[in-house]
Amino acid sequence: MQHSIGFGLTTAMFGSPEMLEIFSPTGFVRRMLDVEAALARAEARCGVIPADAAARISAVCAGSVDGGDASRSNASCVIDLETLAQGAVEAGNLAIPFVRQLTAAVAKRDEEAARYVHWGATSQDILDTALVLQLVDALQVHDAQLMRLANDCAALARRHRDTVMVGRTWQQHALPITFGLKAAGWLDALRRDLARLDTTRREVSVLQFGGAVGTLASLGPQASDVAARLAEELSLASAPLPWHAHRDRIVEVASTLGMLCGNLGKMARDISLMMQTEVAELAEPAAPGRGGSSTMPHKRNPVGCAAVLTIAARVPALVSTMFASMTQEHERALGGWQAEWDTLPEIVILTGGALRQMGEVIAGLQVDTARMRKNLDMTGGLILGEAYMLALGGRLGRLPAHHLVERASRKAVCDGVPLREALESCLAADPALTGLLDAETLNQLADPARYTGQAGRFVEVALQEWQAACAVRTR
Amino acid sequence: MQHSIGFGLTTAMFGSPEMLEIFSPTGFVRRMLDVEAALARAEARCGVIPADAAARISAVCAGSVDGGDASRSNASCVIDLETLAQGAVEAGNLAIPFVRQLTAAVAKRDEEAARYVHWGATSQDILDTALVLQLVDALQVHDAQLMRLANDCAALARRHRDTVMVGRTWQQHALPITFGLKAAGWLDALRRDLARLDTTRREVSVLQFGGAVGTLASLGPQASDVAARLAEELSLASAPLPWHAHRDRIVEVASTLGMLCGNLGKMARDISLMMQTEVAELAEPAAPGRGGSSTMPHKRNPVGCAAVLTIAARVPALVSTMFASMTQEHERALGGWQAEWDTLPEIVILTGGALRQMGEVIAGLQVDTARMRKNLDMTGGLILGEAYMLALGGRLGRLPAHHLVERASRKAVCDGVPLREALESCLAADPALTGLLDAETLNQLADPARYTGQAGRFVEVALQEWQAACAVRTR
Amino acid sequence: MQHSIGFGLTTAMFGSPEMLEIFSPTGFVRRMLDVEAALARAEARCGVIPADAAARISAVCAGSVDGGDASRSNASCVIDLETLAQGAVEAGNLAIPFVRQLTAAVAKRDEEAARYVHWGATSQDILDTALVLQLVDALQVHDAQLMRLANDCAALARRHRDTVMVGRTWQQHALPITFGLKAAGWLDALRRDLARLDTTRREVSVLQFGGAVGTLASLGPQASDVAARLAEELSLASAPLPWHAHRDRIVEVASTLGMLCGNLGKMARDISLMMQTEVAELAEPAAPGRGGSSTMPHKRNPVGCAAVLTIAARVPALVSTMFASMTQEHERALGGWQAEWDTLPEIVILTGGALRQMGEVIAGLQVDTARMRKNLDMTGGLILGEAYMLALGGRLGRLPAHHLVERASRKAVCDGVPLREALESCLAADPALTGLLDAETLNQLADPARYTGQAGRFVEVALQEWQAACAVRTR
Amino acid sequence: MQHSIGFGLTTAMFGSPEMLEIFSPTGFVRRMLDVEAALARAEARCGVIPADAAARISAVCAGSVDGGDASRSNASCVIDLETLAQGAVEAGNLAIPFVRQLTAAVAKRDEEAARYVHWGATSQDILDTALVLQLVDALQVHDAQLMRLANDCAALARRHRDTVMVGRTWQQHALPITFGLKAAGWLDALRRDLARLDTTRREVSVLQFGGAVGTLASLGPQASDVAARLAEELSLASAPLPWHAHRDRIVEVASTLGMLCGNLGKMARDISLMMQTEVAELAEPAAPGRGGSSTMPHKRNPVGCAAVLTIAARVPALVSTMFASMTQEHERALGGWQAEWDTLPEIVILTGGALRQMGEVIAGLQVDTARMRKNLDMTGGLILGEAYMLALGGRLGRLPAHHLVERASRKAVCDGVPLREALESCLAADPALTGLLDAETLNQLADPARYTGQAGRFVEVALQEWQAACAVRTR
Repeated sequence: MQHSIGFGLTTAMFGSPEMLEIFSPTGFVRRMLDVEAALARAEARCGVIPADAAARISAVCAGSVDGGDASRSNASCVIDLETLAQGAVEAGNLAIPFVRQLTAAVAKRDEEAARYVHWGATSQDILDTALVLQLVDALQVHDAQLMRLANDCAALARRHRDTVMVGRTWQQHALPITFGLKAAGWLDALRRDLARLDTTRREVSVLQFGGAVGTLASLGPQASDVAARLAEELSLASAPLPWHAHRDRIVEVASTLGMLCGNLGKMARDISLMMQTEVAELAEPAAPGRGGSSTMPHKRNPVGCAAVLTIAARVPALVSTMFASMTQEHERALGGWQAEWDTLPEIVILTGGALRQMGEVIAGLQVDTARMRKNLDMTGGLILGEAYMLALGGRLGRLPAHHLVERASRKAVCDGVPLREALESCLAADPALTGLLDAETLNQLADPARYTGQAGRFVEVALQEWQAACAVRTR
Repeated sequence: MQHSIGFGLTTAMFGSPEMLEIFSPTGFVRRMLDVEAALARAEARCGVIPADAAARISAVCAGSVDGGDASRSNASCVIDLETLAQGAVEAGNLAIPFVRQLTAAVAKRDEEAARYVHWGATSQDILDTALVLQLVDALQVHDAQLMRLANDCAALARRHRDTVMVGRTWQQHALPITFGLKAAGWLDALRRDLARLDTTRREVSVLQFGGAVGTLASLGPQASDVAARLAEELSLASAPLPWHAHRDRIVEVASTLGMLCGNLGKMARDISLMMQTEVAELAEPAAPGRGGSSTMPHKRNPVGCAAVLTIAARVPALVSTMFASMTQEHERALGGWQAEWDTLPEIVILTGGALRQMGEVIAGLQVDTARMRKNLDMTGGLILGEAYMLALGGRLGRLPAHHLVERASRKAVCDGVPLREALESCLAADPALTGLLDAETLNQLADPARYTGQAGRFVEVALQEWQAACAVRTR
Repeated sequence: MQHSIGFGLTTAMFGSPEMLEIFSPTGFVRRMLDVEAALARAEARCGVIPADAAARISAVCAGSVDGGDASRSNASCVIDLETLAQGAVEAGNLAIPFVRQLTAAVAKRDEEAARYVHWGATSQDILDTALVLQLVDALQVHDAQLMRLANDCAALARRHRDTVMVGRTWQQHALPITFGLKAAGWLDALRRDLARLDTTRREVSVLQFGGAVGTLASLGPQASDVAARLAEELSLASAPLPWHAHRDRIVEVASTLGMLCGNLGKMARDISLMMQTEVAELAEPAAPGRGGSSTMPHKRNPVGCAAVLTIAARVPALVSTMFASMTQEHERALGGWQAEWDTLPEIVILTGGALRQMGEVIAGLQVDTARMRKNLDMTGGLILGEAYMLALGGRLGRLPAHHLVERASRKAVCDGVPLREALESCLAADPALTGLLDAETLNQLADPARYTGQAGRFVEVALQEWQAACAVRTR
Repeated sequence: MQHSIGFGLTTAMFGSPEMLEIFSPTGFVRRMLDVEAALARAEARCGVIPADAAARISAVCAGSVDGGDASRSNASCVIDLETLAQGAVEAGNLAIPFVRQLTAAVAKRDEEAARYVHWGATSQDILDTALVLQLVDALQVHDAQLMRLANDCAALARRHRDTVMVGRTWQQHALPITFGLKAAGWLDALRRDLARLDTTRREVSVLQFGGAVGTLASLGPQASDVAARLAEELSLASAPLPWHAHRDRIVEVASTLGMLCGNLGKMARDISLMMQTEVAELAEPAAPGRGGSSTMPHKRNPVGCAAVLTIAARVPALVSTMFASMTQEHERALGGWQAEWDTLPEIVILTGGALRQMGEVIAGLQVDTARMRKNLDMTGGLILGEAYMLALGGRLGRLPAHHLVERASRKAVCDGVPLREALESCLAADPALTGLLDAETLNQLADPARYTGQAGRFVEVALQEWQAACAVRTR
């Protein structure tokens, strides 16, 4: 683990520091020690092992985890990471060398107590439960990041409720929308993510404890009591039965985070497209050394969005590894379980990174409302074709109106005139149509701000839903 | 769509007929007609279009969808599938030629009403809402299949609560378990799948209705009322805002089904391994023409399990396409949305197939309890090493006991004698150990049925959880 | 197979008709008949079965494959697809009901000959070899499509060797390039794809023939002769040994096509971005009913690019299914093989679709060179910052020059003046810098066409490489 | 990069040390320095920068890369990894802080020379070329590992040419094969992998050098000469044009390794199934601490196979990320390129790990030929049904023979007698059949070693192909 591997570059670069800490070697070993300590205490409470031994084990487990140098001589050091990494390479498993070191550390203080280290548990009990403890903490971090981000989106939606801009379909100008509507769309997706995160955290907060084949046979009749108290010690729920080879709870974490990353990727896609030199409606917050280029001094690159898009590009395949690994053999598997080891932490860390990056982008997002307004005029009013078409449709029927506006649009493009002008010519040229739309009506139809339909109302509904979701949380 | 494409072989072979029907061209076009009819009625109720026109459109939409031959001349035929397929190839979209045909069909009866077909909607409104209607029906089918399967697993768990068999880790004999425990593990996973299915069906039962860019501008001030009534007509919930480019609800369906397929794949893996000629503890139900081989007349192939494993191998990648397609551009996307079109129905159908296949396997599963018992003896008691180790551990400490049993195990293997005998030799050879275990104790330790720990209790808890879940449903 | 499944929509819509034909039920059954006929002939040539029987089988195999109606009564019909599909659902395999029908069809004419149908072969021999025959034909279609497309790219590169346009990095204006360079980049990637296609077609053109477990035991001592003649009859190479569970040749097809789709997706990404309303440098060819929108009459949607991006979004996951399915058990697998059945044809068809769509886009691509030139000026010359920086760098050193241009760029942005003007102010303001660049030099530096570096030369090299590749092929 | 991230566990555990070294931070930075040094020398040779400056830059680049402690004060240290990692997090890119540090290190010795560091290159030129240098070295390591592994498989195939064992299809006993045939199947797949590896290494050994947008404009007319000499300095080929956003060469590496991992996964699947307690035909080499279990002292877990299966489970999804990332925007991309950074090294390292693990498994594989022979008898001769069927088929026709053997097989199962005995009863019971097979014939038919068909010949052909492949290499 001290290999300090060169790849992991994007993960390290984009990952949030809190997440990197939780999934650091120290972070994981710390939680393994917590599980062993809780196990000893639970077993002592049930009379399975002597109370003295449990106290001793628990005390030793509270000692330090060490990554090197001087501190190695430190008396409180229980687990030496370098040695652990070596042992893991040989054993194909972190738990085996871990239990060996822990037993030795206890034995140094109390030979008798050392007998009872890891009593009745199997490697996977410790590894899975330590993973659950990491996930519970990690999902809490995600939750806080997501709250901040969603609140910032809510603020954007509120502030720009009536900021009119181009709505785009197929990456082409379509009809006017408001920037508030776009932000409300982001917000509403994040609200759903938050709800999924809640559910998933609850589902995964569950003890793994089954012994070698999930029967806890080695603990005799007290087994269920020990399991109940161990769950209690660790503030986890009990599972109806051990789940060594049934991984859907774990996969649900991956899947919930995959959806979150997808929603963040959609935001990043929108923002990076709106940051293009030719569009220039948005800009990521400026920061020294951020988004600069060594050879193009004028550039403002969408570095935050690029990070989120990178993560959104990587996570789906990682999630599919989790799904594909579910067909695990018998009581404990051969390959499927191990395939999770690097994959799930990477998903969790990358999600934290995407939330951090998008959090910074949104918190400091520069919105150029003038440019938004200006881009609306780029097609000389063609973007309002539907408005004209519907106004005419009420009088002519949908298809004839469609054809008329199509004709006027072609004329506008050919002659290089605004659509309104082209349409007026068409109407004037045909006696049957003359006077169909008066000047006042045409003025109103030519104003994109009058053709944003329910955008404002949708923003309000999304904000209400968000407030309702927040209210539920604070209760 | 009449291409009747040659691939789709596994999908057609393994897919459940009900699902194939829902996702057939007829099944989809039927639901598009339902949406258009409901739209016309909702708009008439709000005074947006004339009531007469709505009645006419609604009546035409109730006509037949046709795939060919004689009926083509049928007066009630609204949509001709062959023509529709041709049009879709040209338009890159099923809705455009569909609306064209529907408008023509209405016009044949009432020129005036034809003006109001598809009024104010965009293609994606119809396609997405028709998809939602398919999904609601499909998830209902899954739910029923899953209930039956879980009930059969519950019956297996109950019946085999005390059927002792080999527990295997790393595909090697580890310790005894019961077959009931294995079945209870399957059951408990299916119970979680059922809960996820419930949640997901609720989340996805939501109307898509936004017009070209999600503002419903073309419907004027009545837009929100129309939307509300349209949702009501279709028994769907309203979304806070249109979700053309926010796909997490749709992806959640894929992900929930992916987890279900993973859990079914785990069952299929277990069963197929237990059906190996050398293991022979289980057999799929025999049926004429099923699992036979043209050249090996004696074989009983795990054809149901193979189908489920095939599906479990294909679905994770399909799910990852859904996740990866979430980064959709602006108000309506370029490629991301279209990537869902084949992918999601395939996931839904394959899941139905996996449920059907596993349903048949479990419903007729042949359990050879005698062989299970016999396989336990295959290692001459080595499988009970832990039992001996723990019995000795209480007296000698964990590590010395471990070493002693390891030594006895090696001796048993070398000398080709049962572990009990080898251990007795070891104990006898060392005066310090002699008499540590008496004959009575050794007899008990040598009985695998006495070393299944909490297996029975876990089975009961899983059954209680299942009953509780069922009780909630019937309320 | 007559299910005419509703999904397969994108596949059917985007797939090239030739490919859909090859992978239609008829296309596949036709090739299965070819294999059975060749097998009979090869066996007769080796004296394994009577020559009369072989002649009869071969004649029957030349009969028609039928999909329905009247022709069903046709005397020449060997295989009825409807019945075949039913049988496949029951047997879990197309070959079993196929052999049954073929045997019956032969028996109707010659009871004796019917004994020798499928003699010594296993289901997978027929299915795999028929697949190989499909792949050989399909890759030939791809090859022809790819040649046309690459030639069109070569023409674009040649024609636009000196058409200057904006080069973009991070979706931001960076430095000038030529459109020829962009087209040459596409061309060079397609050249590599063509080479890979050649290699892959050669690698996969190989007979599958091993009998039940790959020993051909059922054919006795003539087995190898039969295999050699069978390969000859089908114009395929012989494999050193049967490859029922070693699938890398098949996976290589998926992977080669996956790379091709990725390269096409890159082209589609570039073109669709350049078609944005705000950029408008390129347009897909106009065609009636193509890219239109029912509600936005002015739009010209990138429908070809969208199809290619859809395919590029779907294929990677399908390819991963092929890779993941390689871990096949023993002599013939359980799930891994079946997972290929739908997946590989879908990849092959989708690739043909992407080639067709991109072929149409490039063949009729509308290039607006004036707009390309105009977009270059959008940043007031900031895009030429590097040119100024390097001109200054020779005099001041890289870092000071970088800082100076950075300063001038900021000034240009603040004051809303062109970079050249801002730079002149900066130079004038500092006596140490005054006169560093004279007017003539500044004029040259301000011309983007003078700052395209090796673009022209790179175009020429790419064209030469392409000509060399073509020359090799015609030899 | 000193984060020493906790995940990366399987990668670190299973990865080969040589690969971990190549992809360590030091390994990567070392190669970046090599590229910068070669660039300076190439530019000096073309007169683009002064020879003195190039000499100085080159000398500084030969200095040490440092990860910490004492050596930090070392005068020869050019790049401090900790600072570099910090800078990368801020810049979103390793090259920017790297060039900064390198420039500073040169400036300390020679202010003038520092001007010319990184002259005319863009970040991606350095990063991609350094990656290419890593890949060339890494593929060389794979090649050597693969040679050893294939040679060991060849030895197995040779040694066990006539070791008869059960052939299994659908994980069920089918017909006899030889263990030599199985090993020859593995060998032949590895031979194809080796050929792909050769091609791929050649294709990817190519310089990346294009400057900001691929025009090398900043180097003026000497640009192409510089490029040619830079390629020469680094022993790489020149590309026709820069390939910053055309990634198929890089993806081909991923795909070739993906196929290799798939083939290794197939071997691991076979071996782990054959190691099951009930099968016990093979065993991984025993080693202290390897495959042991803390609670089940008798177990010999397939730890090597598990590692390979883990890798084979993870790599396909990582490969799909590479494919999916190919749709890169314009001249340099936004997310697609960065998605490669962690993904490709992980694939390369994991492949090295799979080769190492499978290398150890095969090198020390324990083959229990007696058990192989014994397992053949497990079905009482049912496994030889085809032999009987064919012997009878020549006399009765295929279908009647099939039915007869099917009947006998059922009788054998019901009565618990060997197939031969059941068949003799059937023949005796029907006067028309009596005497159809004499005792001598029946004896021969009952010997599985006589029913391995072309197995021996296939082994020989595979060995010849392997020798031919080796001969080509040594030439």
